[in-house]
Amino acid sequence: MSDRLQQVLADRKERHLNELLDLLRIPSVSTDPNRADDVRRAATWLIDDFAAHGFETTLLETVGHPAVVARRHPHPGGLTVLIYGHYDVQPADPLELWETDPFDPVVREGAIVARGASDDKGQVFAHVKGAFALLEADGELPVNLTFLIEGEEEIGSKNLAPAIEANRELLKADVALVSDGAMLPGGIPTLTYGLKGLTYLELRVRTANRDLHSGGFGGGVPNAATAIATIVSKLKDENGRISVPGFYDDVLEISEEERAQFARVPFDEASFAKGIGVSATPGEEGRGLLERLWARPTLDVNGIGGGFQGEGSKTVIPAEAMAKVSCRLVPNQDPEKIADAIEAYVNEIAPPGANVEVIRHAGGAWALSPLDGKAVQAAAAAVREVDGQDPVFVRTGGTIPVIADLQQMLGAEVVLVDMGLEEDKIHSPNEKFDLDLFYRGIHLSAEILRALAKS
Amino acid sequence: MSDRLQQVLADRKERHLNELLDLLRIPSVSTDPNRADDVRRAATWLIDDFAAHGFETTLLETVGHPAVVARRHPHPGGLTVLIYGHYDVQPADPLELWETDPFDPVVREGAIVARGASDDKGQVFAHVKGAFALLEADGELPVNLTFLIEGEEEIGSKNLAPAIEANRELLKADVALVSDGAMLPGGIPTLTYGLKGLTYLELRVRTANRDLHSGGFGGGVPNAATAIATIVSKLKDENGRISVPGFYDDVLEISEEERAQFARVPFDEASFAKGIGVSATPGEEGRGLLERLWARPTLDVNGIGGGFQGEGSKTVIPAEAMAKVSCRLVPNQDPEKIADAIEAYVNEIAPPGANVEVIRHAGGAWALSPLDGKAVQAAAAAVREVDGQDPVFVRTGGTIPVIADLQQMLGAEVVLVDMGLEEDKIHSPNEKFDLDLFYRGIHLSAEILRALAKS
Repeated sequence: MSDRLQQVLADRKERHLNELLDLLRIPSVSTDPNRADDVRRAATWLIDDFAAHGFETTLLETVGHPAVVARRHPHPGGLTVLIYGHYDVQPADPLELWETDPFDPVVREGAIVARGASDDKGQVFAHVKGAFALLEADGELPVNLTFLIEGEEEIGSKNLAPAIEANRELLKADVALVSDGAMLPGGIPTLTYGLKGLTYLELRVRTANRDLHSGGFGGGVPNAATAIATIVSKLKDENGRISVPGFYDDVLEISEEERAQFARVPFDEASFAKGIGVSATPGEEGRGLLERLWARPTLDVNGIGGGFQGEGSKTVIPAEAMAKVSCRLVPNQDPEKIADAIEAYVNEIAPPGANVEVIRHAGGAWALSPLDGKAVQAAAAAVREVDGQDPVFVRTGGTIPVIADLQQMLGAEVVLVDMGLEEDKIHSPNEKFDLDLFYRGIHLSAEILRALAKS
Repeated sequence: MSDRLQQVLADRKERHLNELLDLLRIPSVSTDPNRADDVRRAATWLIDDFAAHGFETTLLETVGHPAVVARRHPHPGGLTVLIYGHYDVQPADPLELWETDPFDPVVREGAIVARGASDDKGQVFAHVKGAFALLEADGELPVNLTFLIEGEEEIGSKNLAPAIEANRELLKADVALVSDGAMLPGGIPTLTYGLKGLTYLELRVRTANRDLHSGGFGGGVPNAATAIATIVSKLKDENGRISVPGFYDDVLEISEEERAQFARVPFDEASFAKGIGVSATPGEEGRGLLERLWARPTLDVNGIGGGFQGEGSKTVIPAEAMAKVSCRLVPNQDPEKIADAIEAYVNEIAPPGANVEVIRHAGGAWALSPLDGKAVQAAAAAVREVDGQDPVFVRTGGTIPVIADLQQMLGAEVVLVDMGLEEDKIHSPNEKFDLDLFYRGIHLSAEILRALAKS
């Protein structure tokens, strides 16, 4: 770190904190129609802050809440970095469980306590203040920088993809940084470079024109509940491999380097199992648990139902049954192609007398940035500079459509630089963000921009 | 038929009808606490009628509604016949769908229309009037006769078995007759000599201490919905045979005589399938449809459930799931032994990480009377006398615990002499009983007693 940046960060500590507290006071609850003005107020508050620091600002209107775009691009033709985050927050309910007012932030036991402290105002604001500090210390940013801070993340970001699509040129970036999550337990510096995609189907089985009495018809008719169970049971084999023909065709195997990095992750399988009360951790045979969780495609039944589910007994043969089935997908699987394959297979394995309808629900693309790419490497260098240790490199089984959009629509290498902790209680009462981690985030963001400039 | 009986039946036609209409006017709805007095009134009405015809009567009190017992035993050491029926009725709701008052019976288009006309006041009363006519015609009954007419059939007969158990000597019989159902379509004279038993289990699977996010945990944890589907799918093999070890050990094969009788039953598989909208009639390979429906044990999933069953998508890995599984049992299977076998098997096939709890719900014994026994043979002879044709001999997949109780507790050969039609609308608005079938029932009952006396 240059002495000048260190000095600025030290000088601005109180101001950075006070500004975040101001932002946290705005109850920008995106799901609450009565808070629409507050949501917009948070956006214009950010617009004003960016404008005051020489950023070109755009309030990107959508049919819902607006997104804030702020750009400072001092290096024509140079590397462009986009930082994505969101200024909207979850509702504070149940209010009675908060020890202090969720929208009157306090610093208690070394942490900022307020709705949005960690998710995501605190984390995205660390990036904002990191850029401003760097600007103040060095006189200019070392890269072209764009902020995209939306107001609908907590309600599904449904208007963001069209907004990105319509503003590709404005938002175009080589690298994208996202801080909207938690580090691995113990606050180990964590860089996430891959997410899974998703395809979600509903299978509906019909076998007769009505439920039938098991005494009158048992032994002579198809049973929809048995049929759905039979279909579901044939989706995976005894070794945990998904049986759908062609399912694994496009799966990218992890590299030796990734395998080595996974091995470095402090992950205790016994604690994992104990925490969720499972007596086994079954999955695809021959694959390690982390590989399965992060880098192998999976299939789960999310729900199953049919016939009589009440108390006691009812001697009915169900005429209808359903199952919700979803897959988490990895590079280079295509969600639509996988949905097609499942639909074809399900129709093939349906037992006699079972008519199957397949309905497609949500889907989403995977995202993966190269481990040796500039985004991951610069973030890692910054972690070494700020934390004095190597980060761990992880992927996740989760799906965040906006990450895939940033990658696919803008062409950016995306890295998730989580700044929070698992214990931050996001979405719950008494949400917090450790003050030290806020200051560390500001510093880290500035150092990532510097490292990217050198890459 | 002797001329004398024919004369009595002809002379009493109007009176028999009017008496049944009187009984039908009593709204003896057993499930309605406000009708408790009416239920008792129907019982005492019957008691009075029996007493007036020289029967010893007992109002058998239970913790619920009383049962009527009426005995006339003129032949010490001779054959004793018990006729079982019920005087309680279903509620009349929805009242607005009745064309006439359900408790103000009318004769319309050749049928008595009222709640209980067919189920079961009309049918059991035909037996009562048959016995009285025979008594009037011949001066005495040809056999010892006991009526057992309960008041809780429509609410599960739950107090009847203890009452039978406590009054074995009073109710002891060689043969029991039951008329509480419908003949085969077209009014073909039907004698039912066998019913299936039942064992009903609920399987509950637990895999984790809470539902888990499929993005965070998919590929690393057991799934309760998949587990229940896997278990259910292994209960039967590809040929429709139940896979539970020992399940078929005690199964009695049907005799060649039964097979021949089944072949005589006018049963069209295509109409059967069309009526219920099924495109296949799967079951145990190598067994005919009627054999499967009537004489082979069956297993059905009555309900299955777990995880998210609402609209749309929720990416959850269910921690709990359940299935209701029941078997219809045949001679000589024991419901408890079969439940034990299923429980053991289910625990054996449960996939890794799935903890299974088995809960036992309802059960019931099968019943079977010999085709060449006196009950079936006398009923058949009476059908030939009254209808001028052979009856068809059938078994059913249904379970009526009271039939098994009559067989097991009293040692009676039981035959079901259904007098109604499928189109009688029992349990529905505008329930009816064809007037001709009422008169035929009276005659048939008298002739069965005569045939039994000769056996």
